[in-house]
Amino acid sequence: MAAAAPPPPPSPAPEAPNDVPQGSTPRGHPLFARIRLAHPTDVPHIHKLIHQMAVFERLSDQCIATEASLSSTLFTSPPFQSFTIFVLEVSHAPFVEHLQYNNAAYPPVTKVVNLDLPINDPDRDLFRSNGGVLGGDACVAGFVLFFPNYSTFLAKPGFYIEDLFVRECYRRKGLGKMLLSAVAKQAVKMGYGRVEWVVLDWNVNAIRFYEEMGAKILQEWRICRLTGDALNAYVNAQL
Amino acid sequence: MAAAAPPPPPSPAPEAPNDVPQGSTPRGHPLFARIRLAHPTDVPHIHKLIHQMAVFERLSDQCIATEASLSSTLFTSPPFQSFTIFVLEVSHAPFVEHLQYNNAAYPPVTKVVNLDLPINDPDRDLFRSNGGVLGGDACVAGFVLFFPNYSTFLAKPGFYIEDLFVRECYRRKGLGKMLLSAVAKQAVKMGYGRVEWVVLDWNVNAIRFYEEMGAKILQEWRICRLTGDALNAYVNAQL
Repeated sequence: MAAAAPPPPPSPAPEAPNDVPQGSTPRGHPLFARIRLAHPTDVPHIHKLIHQMAVFERLSDQCIATEASLSSTLFTSPPFQSFTIFVLEVSHAPFVEHLQYNNAAYPPVTKVVNLDLPINDPDRDLFRSNGGVLGGDACVAGFVLFFPNYSTFLAKPGFYIEDLFVRECYRRKGLGKMLLSAVAKQAVKMGYGRVEWVVLDWNVNAIRFYEEMGAKILQEWRICRLTGDALNAYVNAQL
Repeated sequence: MAAAAPPPPPSPAPEAPNDVPQGSTPRGHPLFARIRLAHPTDVPHIHKLIHQMAVFERLSDQCIATEASLSSTLFTSPPFQSFTIFVLEVSHAPFVEHLQYNNAAYPPVTKVVNLDLPINDPDRDLFRSNGGVLGGDACVAGFVLFFPNYSTFLAKPGFYIEDLFVRECYRRKGLGKMLLSAVAKQAVKMGYGRVEWVVLDWNVNAIRFYEEMGAKILQEWRICRLTGDALNAYVNAQL
């Protein structure tokens, strides 16, 4: 992203409360959803999701992430200690246990969303995952990237959510809420004090959704960003 | 900090460009300044600085940090990999090398600020440091706490500055700029893409100072915060 660009918003498409009853019993057109820790083999999907997000935000000219640059900067620390990614997978068949994803730091979480109509996913093949599903039709539907931040007033870490994205055809089904809740739940589990992210001030639907999730919107604070040439000018700075 | 509280602003008292010529040759009333990595033994001073900052922001009721809670949550990772603190020390005598602070990850940086008048520091005894100064009159004048963040668009880490604080009697002498520049320089050195922080929208002096430092102010973005009871409600959340 270039100097003047805003950061990618979490959940650019807010997840409205889902009118379809949810539960663990499949009915109608069940959609099986799973959240698990990302694995280095997920990078091609994560890369595509990031670029879809950039297009959605009309900032694709500023998105220079490549699979190689993501691979070399992510997965450098154990989960939750630094940059951490949850991947959201969906399937029309139940997920089965898969050794590759059976991470003790975060055992995968599943739920069933019962839909009135089946979902037509035009990008299913692009996002097909090897998640170990009976029938083998699982695909990646979204992700959340977060990392620890710190509050000196609380003297506690928290989590900052950099990105939260659900692919268009899977929105408004409670899946963004599922991703955000997973981060919040993990924060509480670790005794952390806050979960924070940013939203565009004109995105009233997203703001309403976040407030329903319990978040406060801090109206007075502005982000300051030093990047590009302005940052590089400090390379030889005489302090 | 409580649920609705804003985060502590970096540099609540902006450092105006210093009219006093600076350099390495002491003249007039020289003030020797040094930036170094914080050490666990600095916690009592850092704790006092955090509370001074909270008073300055009129948010002291929300500052529950104690020396013990700071000690147990900071210094858990090598410098720059997670929460990192630079301490700013000042002295009327030159700093000498001190084995305790001779950290290979960040060798201390010093400069001389030549002042027309000497500084009267009412809290000198409270902030006295064992920094190894000829004459032994060094004290802690400020700090900056920062940690890595991540941009998916750049596929690069950056630094987020949570706090930047200079004690009142040492403001407007270029010391806040020195702290911010030290973080920016370290970011460039590590190949990072951004340095970010937040500012209150009505703090026009701080905004002007940050813009002079090369930062862009992102006007459209708002911080969302989930904390306190609203966060703890997720402890048993059914995703």
